[in-house]
Amino acid sequence: MNFRSDNEAPVAPEIMEALARANSGADHSYGADAATARLQGQFSDLFETEVAVFPVITGTAANALSLAQSAPPYGVVYCHRESHIHTDECNAPEFYTGGAKLHALDGAHGRIDLAALKDALAATGFHGDHEPEPAAISLTQATEAGAVYAIDDIAALAKLAHGRRLRVHMDGARIANAVARLGCAPADMTWRAGIDILSFGATKNGAMAAEAVVVFRRDLVDGLARRRMRGGHLLSKMRFVSAQLEAYIADGLWLALAARANRAASRLADGVSAIAGATLLHPVEGNELFVQLPAGAIDGMAGDGFEFHRWPGAEGTVRLVCSYAARDGDIDALIASLRRHRGAAADINS
Amino acid sequence: MNFRSDNEAPVAPEIMEALARANSGADHSYGADAATARLQGQFSDLFETEVAVFPVITGTAANALSLAQSAPPYGVVYCHRESHIHTDECNAPEFYTGGAKLHALDGAHGRIDLAALKDALAATGFHGDHEPEPAAISLTQATEAGAVYAIDDIAALAKLAHGRRLRVHMDGARIANAVARLGCAPADMTWRAGIDILSFGATKNGAMAAEAVVVFRRDLVDGLARRRMRGGHLLSKMRFVSAQLEAYIADGLWLALAARANRAASRLADGVSAIAGATLLHPVEGNELFVQLPAGAIDGMAGDGFEFHRWPGAEGTVRLVCSYAARDGDIDALIASLRRHRGAAADINS
Amino acid sequence: MNFRSDNEAPVAPEIMEALARANSGADHSYGADAATARLQGQFSDLFETEVAVFPVITGTAANALSLAQSAPPYGVVYCHRESHIHTDECNAPEFYTGGAKLHALDGAHGRIDLAALKDALAATGFHGDHEPEPAAISLTQATEAGAVYAIDDIAALAKLAHGRRLRVHMDGARIANAVARLGCAPADMTWRAGIDILSFGATKNGAMAAEAVVVFRRDLVDGLARRRMRGGHLLSKMRFVSAQLEAYIADGLWLALAARANRAASRLADGVSAIAGATLLHPVEGNELFVQLPAGAIDGMAGDGFEFHRWPGAEGTVRLVCSYAARDGDIDALIASLRRHRGAAADINS
Amino acid sequence: MNFRSDNEAPVAPEIMEALARANSGADHSYGADAATARLQGQFSDLFETEVAVFPVITGTAANALSLAQSAPPYGVVYCHRESHIHTDECNAPEFYTGGAKLHALDGAHGRIDLAALKDALAATGFHGDHEPEPAAISLTQATEAGAVYAIDDIAALAKLAHGRRLRVHMDGARIANAVARLGCAPADMTWRAGIDILSFGATKNGAMAAEAVVVFRRDLVDGLARRRMRGGHLLSKMRFVSAQLEAYIADGLWLALAARANRAASRLADGVSAIAGATLLHPVEGNELFVQLPAGAIDGMAGDGFEFHRWPGAEGTVRLVCSYAARDGDIDALIASLRRHRGAAADINS
Repeated sequence: MNFRSDNEAPVAPEIMEALARANSGADHSYGADAATARLQGQFSDLFETEVAVFPVITGTAANALSLAQSAPPYGVVYCHRESHIHTDECNAPEFYTGGAKLHALDGAHGRIDLAALKDALAATGFHGDHEPEPAAISLTQATEAGAVYAIDDIAALAKLAHGRRLRVHMDGARIANAVARLGCAPADMTWRAGIDILSFGATKNGAMAAEAVVVFRRDLVDGLARRRMRGGHLLSKMRFVSAQLEAYIADGLWLALAARANRAASRLADGVSAIAGATLLHPVEGNELFVQLPAGAIDGMAGDGFEFHRWPGAEGTVRLVCSYAARDGDIDALIASLRRHRGAAADINS
Repeated sequence: MNFRSDNEAPVAPEIMEALARANSGADHSYGADAATARLQGQFSDLFETEVAVFPVITGTAANALSLAQSAPPYGVVYCHRESHIHTDECNAPEFYTGGAKLHALDGAHGRIDLAALKDALAATGFHGDHEPEPAAISLTQATEAGAVYAIDDIAALAKLAHGRRLRVHMDGARIANAVARLGCAPADMTWRAGIDILSFGATKNGAMAAEAVVVFRRDLVDGLARRRMRGGHLLSKMRFVSAQLEAYIADGLWLALAARANRAASRLADGVSAIAGATLLHPVEGNELFVQLPAGAIDGMAGDGFEFHRWPGAEGTVRLVCSYAARDGDIDALIASLRRHRGAAADINS
Repeated sequence: MNFRSDNEAPVAPEIMEALARANSGADHSYGADAATARLQGQFSDLFETEVAVFPVITGTAANALSLAQSAPPYGVVYCHRESHIHTDECNAPEFYTGGAKLHALDGAHGRIDLAALKDALAATGFHGDHEPEPAAISLTQATEAGAVYAIDDIAALAKLAHGRRLRVHMDGARIANAVARLGCAPADMTWRAGIDILSFGATKNGAMAAEAVVVFRRDLVDGLARRRMRGGHLLSKMRFVSAQLEAYIADGLWLALAARANRAASRLADGVSAIAGATLLHPVEGNELFVQLPAGAIDGMAGDGFEFHRWPGAEGTVRLVCSYAARDGDIDALIASLRRHRGAAADINS
Repeated sequence: MNFRSDNEAPVAPEIMEALARANSGADHSYGADAATARLQGQFSDLFETEVAVFPVITGTAANALSLAQSAPPYGVVYCHRESHIHTDECNAPEFYTGGAKLHALDGAHGRIDLAALKDALAATGFHGDHEPEPAAISLTQATEAGAVYAIDDIAALAKLAHGRRLRVHMDGARIANAVARLGCAPADMTWRAGIDILSFGATKNGAMAAEAVVVFRRDLVDGLARRRMRGGHLLSKMRFVSAQLEAYIADGLWLALAARANRAASRLADGVSAIAGATLLHPVEGNELFVQLPAGAIDGMAGDGFEFHRWPGAEGTVRLVCSYAARDGDIDALIASLRRHRGAAADINS
């Protein structure tokens, strides 16, 4: 049973069906197809404002393209120290921006601390052209720690950034989990709170390979199509990416899948937190748990066939991710396994 | 009926089935899955030598990554004036190489002329560090003009290049059409002829979105995985790309599909060449025709519902592409339409 | 006697004196000094309009920075096939633009042919985002062939470019020679003719290491200071570059030096063109001659101790450059040497 | 009186004389001159090993080129949080490396803490290709805080780095001050301690604009000449940079100048540290002081005409830099001014 990552789960059946439907005949290539054309309206409806949508196939591409539109090569992007763009994308943001610098900020549970951003911005402006230009911030919703920003927190960060003429990017690799958690309109958590450009993720929540750059500010659109092309991210059979996205946001599928994943994570969190010796390191507000455990418990669960990542940072930390496909039975089995091995470990340690 | 491009054709049923099969459960992400692991052996078998395979989802990504492994930022890549890397990738090679220069060479039918390459190389070395370093050549098989290099021609270009310590890249967006045409072993047309690194295309020949960088020279492997990642081309659900490639090369599917497309193009070429006023501009050795026609004929065929691209260059040129899915009936209908409108045009023009 | 290049000549005494004067005490670094501040007004006076001036120390830096301000990474810069930016800067324009493509155009005597530019622009727009964006043209005055554009020719190229919303850059590595030749106001040959941004050269005409980016369009200023810094071209002791430029344009020194070099080249051209078997390949309108000669004559002159470059292109071509420091006696000696050896060669060849 | 920066001091007379001497006639351009040729041997003698020397005109260029030779675009360079490459070069390292990431490390007085580097390296290797590749470390000698690494500290950092196959770069913008301080052979503090590539500074210590990349490892030489060219850093009249460097290292001038600057800083430090309320924030081991002062004292000294930088960080911090040209009288006057105004401030505060 796989708790390694939500991107290891199968593709949702609705998405597979959409792919099959999209294959009924020939259609124009490179995004000149009917499905891609429809997406513009569908995403504009979803976000209650006119947006520009650029489908891509990885979150890294969506992030790097968004940042390239937001920061010049001589710019700085402020982000969380644990953000995906800083730690897991092998310099893709630096590549696509042409050499901008990521400035890592601290903050609890993967959320950028407002004061940390304020301090960082206050420290700029002393060295003239020797300093890169503060250009953008990037925040991740849900965060890398499985937490969710409150809308007001997003708005406060965005307001501070906009006051300094920075652009505001949201890495929404798990945006569905956050919207499902907050129960808000997607607009409330994005442009109404000050987000200028968004990486809208679907792959971690049931798609095969489908993400989108969603642009809320018209002046960030120009050049994006060509940046996507020169990144090698304009698919000839784009219609199959668009078909995934279309099915994903139709009839609330994206939120239904995310709600399932979130519920599974809550169930697991409830079970885990009742076990002595298991410590949840972050609030479980999406579909990820970070748990500190005795070594024996970790090895025991692994020995029982549960798959998960041992996480860098505090010793004995594991990450447990629940996808939309997680079943109650599997979760209960994991809890039981942990309880069993925690006991053993406790015995040994005591 | 679509003669615009082979990448507008539907996905082959065998590929759709492979995608469905690949979705039977969870699997590890980012290429750590079983299908991707199998690919290494399967491609090594296909090419009769140990290769390294890196699946990606566009030909542009495959080309740009291959060139980035082959040329430094201060280097030159020699290519045909009409090559896709030079005319259709919106500076992706410049982007991925970090700023290398493409040097366009002439040659009939999309094939680089050996003498042109010789001359270009002979003109280097006069300006020391002021000149970028000759680093690689890139040739396209089948060519952009729908022709195919003879193996000896590839070998001669590669020998010249290697004599100057350049690397040799093949853009194989339509490699299947070329292999099917030549009836050779894939190895004969690639590494045995001097190819160091290959963009192996599948999308234009029945896949949904699947290409691969195939590396024949071990010293070109190092760094490629990280370059792919920072380009945003390491898919989390890589297994679905690998599943396409696996099905594509299994049981000779790739060559069967290409043979169908080539046969369709030959049928169309036979019909077209029998019509007065229609001129084939290039030998039809793959699945593409470039035909010069009276304006009335072009408009007439379009009016009959045939879709195709009017091509830049000589006035009255159209490109007609036959995919694996082209049916004899459609081809015959297109020929009949042309014959009909050519007559009308001839009347008008006379 | 050195006819290799004007950049091999000594520094003009007026420049050396300016450097000595600039060393009278401490001054603020990184361009916050008094001399650099004065330059803004001095160059605005010189060009009869308010300009922004950015001193640098090489023509390549001036060109690459100018182009980076004029073209996005996904853009195209049109230039002459023999232009310095395309043939002699080891991909610096590609580097600074972040990967833009240079599109080489033909034209006699190093001047971009208007029809060639028209054709190149007319061939764009067929491939949508697959094509890089036409972004700028760059023309060289005086040209690499030692010719000079007429003001009307510059205006015609600029008008065509502006009609397509391209920016217009002038590589003025030898701008002084051109202004001296045309006897026009610097404004007439630059912004009044449509130039948006200029590489203003001084090093080839008596400075030690001093060039400047002169920006005529305000919207091309933003970001240039930081681009210069991240290129490593913001000198801490900038005052010594500015002091050179100040002395160079004060009291018409730059034009006086250029006039001397031009006169020397004319004298040499007169002498050479009177010799049977010596062919001037380009009009001599600045300070450079390109002469086709019998092999024996070339070797003979070299044997007499004259230094010059054998030039790629037509066999038997040499380049002879006259700097401001060329003396009549040296020129006459070179003519005499040529006459002597041409004779010998003629005897041998006859 | 200027205590702002050593790069605001005049050029040393010996350097001015060398420039004048270098202007005695024509010489070959782009580094093919006699002075540049001599440098190779002179620097090899200075460092007691065969080195390759590449003159440039800014420290940023030297650093960025060195790092580009040491780290791939998908790499990481470890450096001190306050290092010039990270805080003052407007992303030049990111630019020249093609997008590598700088990883900031802590450490007292501008010295990288060995344990911090160890921890950072230990935290790598968990995310496969998602992580950039640890590629190089860069340390600054003397440090940005005016301290100097002991040779053993350099050796320990280099050994750790080499054990992980990283390259080791030294930013020697003030290397002369460090060598003068340690009284060691330049070799002892560089390659014998494990430095692979060095930015050798001269501009802050009496040159006009002269730095050099000094390469100790032969495998880091290839490509550097072309990288310099495409950065716009190959001067046509290179001989004037080389002439500066030649004079600078001849007869120990560089160490004599540095010793003067260091002595001046010591004198100033002695005076300052005797004043109540003035706190030296870092050991004064080179030619820089960082002093925390009452606000009144700072304003008072400024009012007396002393120039210096108010420094970011702890409130009330100023930086006082002594160049080779600092005179005892000026230093004593500054101390007197501080004593006078500190008293006033103390009165006000008490």
